Amino acid sequence: MTREALIAEIKRKKSFLCIGLDTDMNKIPEFLKRYEDPIFEFNKRIIDATKDLCVAYKPNIAFYECLGPKGWESLKKTLDYIPKNIFTIADAKRGDIGNTSTYYAKTFFEYLNFDAVTVAPYMGEDSITPFLEFKDKWVIVLALTSNKGSMDFQVFENSHGEKLYERVLEKTSLWGASNQLMYVVGATRLEQIKEVRAKVPNYFFLVPGVGAQGGSLEDVVNYGWNDDCGLLVNSSRGIIYTSNGESFDKDARESAKKVQLQMRDVLVSKKMI
Amino acid sequence: MTREALIAEIKRKKSFLCIGLDTDMNKIPEFLKRYEDPIFEFNKRIIDATKDLCVAYKPNIAFYECLGPKGWESLKKTLDYIPKNIFTIADAKRGDIGNTSTYYAKTFFEYLNFDAVTVAPYMGEDSITPFLEFKDKWVIVLALTSNKGSMDFQVFENSHGEKLYERVLEKTSLWGASNQLMYVVGATRLEQIKEVRAKVPNYFFLVPGVGAQGGSLEDVVNYGWNDDCGLLVNSSRGIIYTSNGESFDKDARESAKKVQLQMRDVLVSKKMI
Repeated sequence: MTREALIAEIKRKKSFLCIGLDTDMNKIPEFLKRYEDPIFEFNKRIIDATKDLCVAYKPNIAFYECLGPKGWESLKKTLDYIPKNIFTIADAKRGDIGNTSTYYAKTFFEYLNFDAVTVAPYMGEDSITPFLEFKDKWVIVLALTSNKGSMDFQVFENSHGEKLYERVLEKTSLWGASNQLMYVVGATRLEQIKEVRAKVPNYFFLVPGVGAQGGSLEDVVNYGWNDDCGLLVNSSRGIIYTSNGESFDKDARESAKKVQLQMRDVLVSKKMI
Repeated sequence: MTREALIAEIKRKKSFLCIGLDTDMNKIPEFLKRYEDPIFEFNKRIIDATKDLCVAYKPNIAFYECLGPKGWESLKKTLDYIPKNIFTIADAKRGDIGNTSTYYAKTFFEYLNFDAVTVAPYMGEDSITPFLEFKDKWVIVLALTSNKGSMDFQVFENSHGEKLYERVLEKTSLWGASNQLMYVVGATRLEQIKEVRAKVPNYFFLVPGVGAQGGSLEDVVNYGWNDDCGLLVNSSRGIIYTSNGESFDKDARESAKKVQLQMRDVLVSKKMI
């Protein structure tokens, strides 16, 4: 998907919501377990219930991988089921030397047909650029994550006061333009979202950590907004596990709808729609 | 596998060779393609031909993942086929927030029954410690990799002259002891192998980059040896793709044998055997 198409969808749906499909066999409603593929059945119903409210879905690959070949089948069916106008993100946090990254890119961009994949930057340029060889496909580089451990290395600082995540922004933004590269920027680090936005004004951010992890949408918008919105705000557990019974999909829709309405208000107040 | 068992195998086999199973459908001998599962068929013959010469096998997960569910089946069959006294490493370079890392750990340690998995440290403590909850299983943390891009972020330096990879060693060695944690240290960075060894004297290093990437075994031993050997030196392409015809497995054995004989001489000269 192109950047223009993504922005057009944000305006059309009045939403910049990404729904995380962290689909966990231990958390899905009991009644789904009588189906042949409970994971896909859960995703299908979540997609049916929310596809007009979000602009992106983000399956967390760990949850599928741990089920072996069957998990990959559920993932493939899910990707095939997601409407083509919705941006799809493989939350895989991959990254390896050139030739290997090309194989990871083939997996996610060709075999599964994702639009984007999350990548860890530790191994540098030749671990990231192979993903950029694929037209209209995206790399989402971990910059500043929302977890506690993000403070261990990401804020490691050089003698000029530059932090590692700032160096990551500086270098990676030379390798990929804002029509193929985004950044993961956690909602739990508000001051830093502002700094990141100043450094890479044109790039989209994928923002985890709103809701369950404590970040607020208002704050994220205040600190991270750019002229094209520039934000995909993710919610996983807060939406897909709203309830656990027969009406889980309707209840997930209600949760997604609440967020979407807030987002609509933001888009109106920012004069994007 | 325990550290003691690994060291015992190194002595018994007179080898600290790890063979990388980067098994690529485009590179395996043509005649194998008439088998139902050519990837497994290739691995099986490589394992049969080399299992007395190496102490570890390291499948590169990207090569299996890109084949979809069938690739995961080939990988599972390969793991089931490797003799239990051989250390197995999932070269997966995973790493995500706590809950997700637990799922990755389940995939590699329980479903596939690997002994170890490689992990990128960018997300910090809660991305690494979940792997350490599994008894006698190992995390191999990327410290200093052998690729060109390793110079982009891994040598980022603070005002005390401490580099990022040194900070990674310092912190991660507090999270995991030398009976559960190893480091990836590339053979192409000789001076730094010495520095890494000084910082973490007791830990094993997984060393890629000997052979195809230009590092020499002699240098790696000079700079990285410790009292328990402390080295698993990996070769992938240099062994498994020695030749491409009917005798590919015998030829792979010849290549592995050459390295093993060098390693035997090292172990003798170091008085380990």
